[in-house]
Amino acid sequence: MASLALGIDLGGTNARAALVDRATGEVVALERRALARRSPEEVVEVLRRAVLAVAGERPASLGRIGVGVAGQVMGGTGLVFNAPNLGWRDVPLGNLLAGALGAPVRVVNDLSAAAWGETCFGAARGARDVLVVFAGTGVGSGIVVGGRLHEGACGVAGELGHVKVRPPRAGEPPRRCGCGSVGCLEAYVGGANLAVRVRAEVEAGVTTRIVEFTSGDISRVTASQVEQACQAGDAYARQLWEELGELLGTAVANAVTLLNPERLVLGGGVLRASPTLRERVGFHVAAATSRTAAARLAVVDAERGDEAGVIGAALLGSESGT
Amino acid sequence: MASLALGIDLGGTNARAALVDRATGEVVALERRALARRSPEEVVEVLRRAVLAVAGERPASLGRIGVGVAGQVMGGTGLVFNAPNLGWRDVPLGNLLAGALGAPVRVVNDLSAAAWGETCFGAARGARDVLVVFAGTGVGSGIVVGGRLHEGACGVAGELGHVKVRPPRAGEPPRRCGCGSVGCLEAYVGGANLAVRVRAEVEAGVTTRIVEFTSGDISRVTASQVEQACQAGDAYARQLWEELGELLGTAVANAVTLLNPERLVLGGGVLRASPTLRERVGFHVAAATSRTAAARLAVVDAERGDEAGVIGAALLGSESGT
Repeated sequence: MASLALGIDLGGTNARAALVDRATGEVVALERRALARRSPEEVVEVLRRAVLAVAGERPASLGRIGVGVAGQVMGGTGLVFNAPNLGWRDVPLGNLLAGALGAPVRVVNDLSAAAWGETCFGAARGARDVLVVFAGTGVGSGIVVGGRLHEGACGVAGELGHVKVRPPRAGEPPRRCGCGSVGCLEAYVGGANLAVRVRAEVEAGVTTRIVEFTSGDISRVTASQVEQACQAGDAYARQLWEELGELLGTAVANAVTLLNPERLVLGGGVLRASPTLRERVGFHVAAATSRTAAARLAVVDAERGDEAGVIGAALLGSESGT
Repeated sequence: MASLALGIDLGGTNARAALVDRATGEVVALERRALARRSPEEVVEVLRRAVLAVAGERPASLGRIGVGVAGQVMGGTGLVFNAPNLGWRDVPLGNLLAGALGAPVRVVNDLSAAAWGETCFGAARGARDVLVVFAGTGVGSGIVVGGRLHEGACGVAGELGHVKVRPPRAGEPPRRCGCGSVGCLEAYVGGANLAVRVRAEVEAGVTTRIVEFTSGDISRVTASQVEQACQAGDAYARQLWEELGELLGTAVANAVTLLNPERLVLGGGVLRASPTLRERVGFHVAAATSRTAAARLAVVDAERGDEAGVIGAALLGSESGT
């Protein structure tokens, strides 16, 4: 019988629970739920039902359950320090979930989990020094050193979305991020912040064909719609991707220069939706990485899509020792 | 009898060879030589004589010798890819030295070696996740993950001096670095580039009391002289330290955000010579590091000074396996 593990991926708008084959990375059962309400108690109830749907009545028999959450997690404690997309601060998710499920739980950052999924059973399979970068609603990364996920002193290693970047336009004040700081990479490149910005600039009078592709509802603009406008020749969309491509590409290049991985994996909803932005990121990674760190670097796209998070969470949860 | 190891620290202007007690980190014999000429053959001869001076006629009996060199080193090969301060490109230092000494040699970057010295027997003693940053003639760092030096896929991990920063003044073109790229942190903060810049700005008409402290020879200005001028109330020197403190402090903060170390060690000749710059770097590290990564971070000064390099080189050389 296959050795199965249970993983949960808790994003800002959806949650997934899955049974994963530890030997192959195959997802053998998956349950996806929208999050209508976001109080910790209500979210835990949604997760409990999702887990029961994939694992039956006895999740405890599967051992420790791994949970990746879209927020800043204090490693080892199960405490979610800050999860802007859920509106959470200092939520003891590990304890709440362990109580609800009657099983031990390990809580990690969702992008760390997804990076681990890509490393074990995706685009970085076989590599030992890896940087996995995701640009989606949020921006983050996972760092693999010598074949192990690097968690850091508090379990928050890999927070690429919260490195500080300079405003791309001279004189512009740095943007505020969901984490409370100003000037974070995610404040520019994260999908949620991107939507807020495009909306504000359109309302301030910018002319762009993005409006056409949103069917008039600019408040819910997506990276996919910016890409459509860009491919239709829209100058504003093109400039936006160039600016974001340089910011993200340079920040990724600096992380590669510092870490010297053998493989760089690029993924996440924003990059997946936009071949133009992906190309500009690749260009700036190549331009800004030190020549020595670039010498043996392979840049590849993520392979496991939305499944990477549950796969990595299941594997990290079922690991012994940590 | 103490277990001794032999380490070499090859800088741009001096070389050191030392016998180090592996159990205590004590330097039991040290030989320091100025480098009058810098061809690989002449430098190897200087190193050979320094090694004989500390180890007697039979260095081979000490096992593998560790060498830290101020340049970019391809890990495992002993090849120095680029060492601007020595004027070297693609020098097979490992092979040359092993031949001259009749002993196996391991070549690493000098700041990686110094970082390892500080980690084992200096300011990061006892810590398992560490970032050690040096700002001297060059700028670099060493990354320790789970108690091991992280070397990366090509052995060049930690090249903080070659992360790209934006020009601090709007409209200014990015500065060229010794590595051949433009916009590297080291092009602004490295002591060699700092001297070139101050000289050029003085020649272009800037008024500063730095000139007094250099006794009129502005061509050899040091960080110590900039600091003297700053402490004497010189506005140019003060602005220079503020600018460099923000550039270095933000780059270090971004590395801390990414890596989440428990300890950050700051060292190197430029920082040691300038309490004002050191204070500004500390300020910007605190301001720009993500709150989670800052939560359990201790920021400390390097303890082993110029000895850290030979200590770390000796330890890395005598390690088995790599």
